[in-house]
Amino acid sequence: MMISSAQDQLSGKPEPVAAGVWRIRLGIPEAAVPTAFRRQPIQTEALGQLPGTALPATGCSVTFKLSQRGVLVRLPMAPDEHLFGMGLQLKSVDQTGKKRQLRVNSDPVADTGDSHAPVPFFLSTRGYGVLVDTARYANFWLGSHQSPPDPIEVKADESAVSTTTDELYAARALEKREILIEVPSAPGVDIYLFGGPDMRTALQRYNLFSGGGCLPPMRALGFWYRLFGPSTQDAVMRLAREFREREIPCDILGIEPGWQTHAYSCSFVWSNRFPEPDRLVEETKALGYGINLWEHAFVHPTSPLYPELRCHAGDWAVWGGLVPDFAQPETRRIFADYHLRQFVSKGIAGFKLDECDNSDFIRSPWSFPECSRFPSGLDGEQMHSLFGVLYQQAITVAFRSQNRRECGEVRSSHALAAPYSSVLYSDLYDHRDFARGVLTAGLSGLLWCPEVRQCESTEDLIRRMQLAMLSPQALINGWMIRNPPWKQVEIEKNNADSFAPEWEKIENICRDLVQLRMRLIPYLYAAFATYRRTGLPPFRPLVVDYPGDARVYPLDDIFLVGPSLLVAPAFVGQRERPVYFPEGTWHCFWTGERFEGGQDVVIPAPLERIPIFVRDNSLLPLARPLSHCADGAIFDMDVRVYGKSPAPAFLWEDDGVSFDHERGAFNEVVLEWKNEAGFVTRNGAYATHRYRIMSWEKA
Amino acid sequence: MMISSAQDQLSGKPEPVAAGVWRIRLGIPEAAVPTAFRRQPIQTEALGQLPGTALPATGCSVTFKLSQRGVLVRLPMAPDEHLFGMGLQLKSVDQTGKKRQLRVNSDPVADTGDSHAPVPFFLSTRGYGVLVDTARYANFWLGSHQSPPDPIEVKADESAVSTTTDELYAARALEKREILIEVPSAPGVDIYLFGGPDMRTALQRYNLFSGGGCLPPMRALGFWYRLFGPSTQDAVMRLAREFREREIPCDILGIEPGWQTHAYSCSFVWSNRFPEPDRLVEETKALGYGINLWEHAFVHPTSPLYPELRCHAGDWAVWGGLVPDFAQPETRRIFADYHLRQFVSKGIAGFKLDECDNSDFIRSPWSFPECSRFPSGLDGEQMHSLFGVLYQQAITVAFRSQNRRECGEVRSSHALAAPYSSVLYSDLYDHRDFARGVLTAGLSGLLWCPEVRQCESTEDLIRRMQLAMLSPQALINGWMIRNPPWKQVEIEKNNADSFAPEWEKIENICRDLVQLRMRLIPYLYAAFATYRRTGLPPFRPLVVDYPGDARVYPLDDIFLVGPSLLVAPAFVGQRERPVYFPEGTWHCFWTGERFEGGQDVVIPAPLERIPIFVRDNSLLPLARPLSHCADGAIFDMDVRVYGKSPAPAFLWEDDGVSFDHERGAFNEVVLEWKNEAGFVTRNGAYATHRYRIMSWEKA
Repeated sequence: MMISSAQDQLSGKPEPVAAGVWRIRLGIPEAAVPTAFRRQPIQTEALGQLPGTALPATGCSVTFKLSQRGVLVRLPMAPDEHLFGMGLQLKSVDQTGKKRQLRVNSDPVADTGDSHAPVPFFLSTRGYGVLVDTARYANFWLGSHQSPPDPIEVKADESAVSTTTDELYAARALEKREILIEVPSAPGVDIYLFGGPDMRTALQRYNLFSGGGCLPPMRALGFWYRLFGPSTQDAVMRLAREFREREIPCDILGIEPGWQTHAYSCSFVWSNRFPEPDRLVEETKALGYGINLWEHAFVHPTSPLYPELRCHAGDWAVWGGLVPDFAQPETRRIFADYHLRQFVSKGIAGFKLDECDNSDFIRSPWSFPECSRFPSGLDGEQMHSLFGVLYQQAITVAFRSQNRRECGEVRSSHALAAPYSSVLYSDLYDHRDFARGVLTAGLSGLLWCPEVRQCESTEDLIRRMQLAMLSPQALINGWMIRNPPWKQVEIEKNNADSFAPEWEKIENICRDLVQLRMRLIPYLYAAFATYRRTGLPPFRPLVVDYPGDARVYPLDDIFLVGPSLLVAPAFVGQRERPVYFPEGTWHCFWTGERFEGGQDVVIPAPLERIPIFVRDNSLLPLARPLSHCADGAIFDMDVRVYGKSPAPAFLWEDDGVSFDHERGAFNEVVLEWKNEAGFVTRNGAYATHRYRIMSWEKA
Repeated sequence: MMISSAQDQLSGKPEPVAAGVWRIRLGIPEAAVPTAFRRQPIQTEALGQLPGTALPATGCSVTFKLSQRGVLVRLPMAPDEHLFGMGLQLKSVDQTGKKRQLRVNSDPVADTGDSHAPVPFFLSTRGYGVLVDTARYANFWLGSHQSPPDPIEVKADESAVSTTTDELYAARALEKREILIEVPSAPGVDIYLFGGPDMRTALQRYNLFSGGGCLPPMRALGFWYRLFGPSTQDAVMRLAREFREREIPCDILGIEPGWQTHAYSCSFVWSNRFPEPDRLVEETKALGYGINLWEHAFVHPTSPLYPELRCHAGDWAVWGGLVPDFAQPETRRIFADYHLRQFVSKGIAGFKLDECDNSDFIRSPWSFPECSRFPSGLDGEQMHSLFGVLYQQAITVAFRSQNRRECGEVRSSHALAAPYSSVLYSDLYDHRDFARGVLTAGLSGLLWCPEVRQCESTEDLIRRMQLAMLSPQALINGWMIRNPPWKQVEIEKNNADSFAPEWEKIENICRDLVQLRMRLIPYLYAAFATYRRTGLPPFRPLVVDYPGDARVYPLDDIFLVGPSLLVAPAFVGQRERPVYFPEGTWHCFWTGERFEGGQDVVIPAPLERIPIFVRDNSLLPLARPLSHCADGAIFDMDVRVYGKSPAPAFLWEDDGVSFDHERGAFNEVVLEWKNEAGFVTRNGAYATHRYRIMSWEKA
């Protein structure tokens, strides 16, 4: 008996959804899918402004099969095609030839697809993207398999005996491979195709389809510091003053679980370690800080939220707390109202939404099982996929009702998350994994924070801080240490207030790094405004901009920031590193040295410098560092001029805080260099000028 | 809306299947389940000889629910109950409070349940066992969850702020927990309950239900050595002679992929590196060796097997080879016939069945996808679960047709595998993981080989060899090194024939270790005979024999061997280690020192000695080491007498090779110690006396 694939059905005609976006319906999709929970509408106008594109060729060759297992989708794949995406992936960037199971997980120690934020979306170097609209732990085989070959012409080669595991298991390039996608349990699924013409535009389309990229409050781009776990209100104030005294710029202070009367699970009630929370908010605000509060969503029986949420929860407890059914609007409303009343209206700047992922890779599983049932009809598997996004949605709504954007962190996310400004983080810690996170998050509408926690050495501290300062969120998470890490990297000594002999020198290096961040804030803020309006992510791997250059596919530690910067972080032990320069000419940010594209160059990476390069023919606006981005802060700017005919650069001017920009209260500040002189023009209706251009300097 | 569990159905009445074994049918089970592929019948007679037992209480409280997800089963669980089993688990022994996904996998780097040999079977310290008869990647939550608590009486404790991840994520003892089992896709499932009265008897019942434990050929208990990958026929003969010259006992020589014209995938044809395979078998046999050949099941287009198997294969290739549909009897027959004709009938002793697992945790997935389809109707998920067992079945049949037992290795197995004598191994290599494998394999009808490969130091070599010699299979896998590891542990130097200065001293230590193994062969062979007849595994954790002693539950590096030995392997860096002695009195194997049970004792572990202890009041028969267990070898035995009134000991006497013992050609040799004198009696019909008792020695 031969197996026939006659049962595979050819899909129906792709239906246009928006400019360059098509939907293909296979079978009968489930109700609880990512598109059913979108908060922001499809950005149809912005989609219409992208270059025109035809239906990707793959759209005519989708086949599927329904069975008791669920739905199996097959897509063609070309031999030279490479695939990227699949959400936050810490272990690999190029997903070609891999199997991915999109299981939500807190500590994925292997390259399996498990992730804090798996996203059923991939991009092809052939210039299209595919979203599988499912909240299931779908399996993707991204060109890893082919059918059994025809034996004619296949010959044995006796000379090659492999003797290493690497050789034996090496991926052979497959001639006739396919993309297989299996969605378990589902009687059908929608897939969305995003046209190009190129990979970058396909990614923009995905983000605009998601509702557009987020625009965080400006201060969220400043420096964050999370305090020692057992900190009291007094201890928070002490550190707040210390940073100002020692001129460490800082915008957000994060308070860990100790602020609650019960944390695992949460009471959402201030403990006696923080006797006067309103005063804390006031006094830190006076010093220019915002407060971010740790929490998770599991509601302890002593919480005031418990009685009301009792009927809006799953059938299994987590750490003795109930699991809110965030798929119900009523649950989100109850949760948002409480947060609004107790915290947001009182000036809290944002929340760290911890443990909204899952726990397969940890010794004792703590999160709700996949077989859970929720009143909304979702099961635990669907809820795990959507939990992080819906949790963000509840919190975001509380802030929006106050016309404020929030400074958030979140440990899980999923599809269509581009409009949420909370940044992902992890208990994992490998530095190269953390760098990879910056790249892969940008491929799926996510933001990632390579936070600095414990450091094995001063060198490790500096290298980790460098990456953090060039990432979506510049955060030191000092939850394990009483004093800032520059005073002492060894945890026990740090907690015994025993400082390193040369700590002030290390503090100086760290201050310089934070100041580098502060210099970049207007540039980064503009990149986020572009993200919001065009869907182009501010942090992204080279393949997004150079999909035709196969040499960029394997790069997992080099990324682009905004329109003009290329960052190549260095790691412990490195004093130089290879950098591949893509097409064009690049200038060292530090020395101005020029590098021609299309080649690998070994670049010096002295300890105090993270290698950064600036695109030729660009204008780079840098701020004179402030101590914080207080509401209405004015930035004095120096503009560096690279190349002979630089393209215009843009800055984005608004109050940095509210959603008034949606009603026109913003300026696009255009910087231009013509005839050896700089020009500034403003398009928009925002009255305040927040950027003062102080100088133009030819680099 | 509250969630009701009203939809959960109470299961029907458990049906008795054999003495102390009950089946509970939930819904309509799938066709492709482990019990549908059993090779050996249920050992009803032996089951009848175990102590009587009532239906375990849990049998009256099983509920289930069917949905599109599959079937969800719920079982009660007591607060003090601990659960063990779930197949080969390298990362943990006590499975209480854990989530296990039974996904077949080659490199499970985390404690997720993924395994070379996941088995949907667990044992309770309350004296029962549960088999879920499924080939699906079922999920088990073994007491990890409870329902949301009643808020009354729950109070917040503000004093405890956890500041370490361990504290935060620590498993809290749950009061009202349950066991949840979810079988995906299935419209029903049978579960089998194994009664006690104790855990050990429940385990025996599971193994007898599986068909009884295996009895490997005696020589399979000797020393195995797998040769350097690129070895030619001449190189094999050189090593065969070297071992005899240097008096390293050895029974089996393993030949790695290089023997085939094409190995990834397999041609199953001798390459020109082995020009005269018949002569190789003859010449090695003359020196007392058996030959084991590496292979996997994926059939290269150049293989003579390819045309016949073309119509009996899955729809996706692996390494360019077809995947035989072993669920079809015809496929197994074709495969077995070929092996019989080409290898078994020509004297090959066994096969190493590699890569029959799966590859989620590796950079490039190589095995067939779960969405595969096979002519038998199985999908890839079911096939992955059953593939290793069915592959063993095909090979075993080839040997049985020659009335010979095989010396095998296999990289995947599953439920009901006790009758198969092939031993599991892994590309993983952590030494403590490897020790754990010995314990957990014994809890699910499996055998595990903690093989010695690369060694970081001489100490590592010795420690690893010690564990290997006290395990189901005493194997050095030298596939990466040209010379035995005792000549040089550094791989590059080894392959350059550059030996360690003191290599002969290290060789002496290793020879002593192999000789220790040779001394134990009759004792181990008797333990396997017990396994075959009573289902009691020869290698098992202490909890099997002492389920009432909660102090043994966490022990993951101490195990029992046969009726009288307790082994506590030491690891690199240790010169002493803690040993918990269970109830009774124990004697150091090396010094005779006595230890009373119920306590932890720090035991010296000098490098050249693995800590071994002998149960008080036992007789330990030790052989004078031979160079190999050739067919019909006669063992000169010394019997050590421990304690004042030792229980009788048993040896098992047969030809060590064939299945004639099934027709009565065996003796049970009874050793007794009465009135300070030893007595030997033989019960049985085997004419040859293979054991000569030379001395009785009071220890």
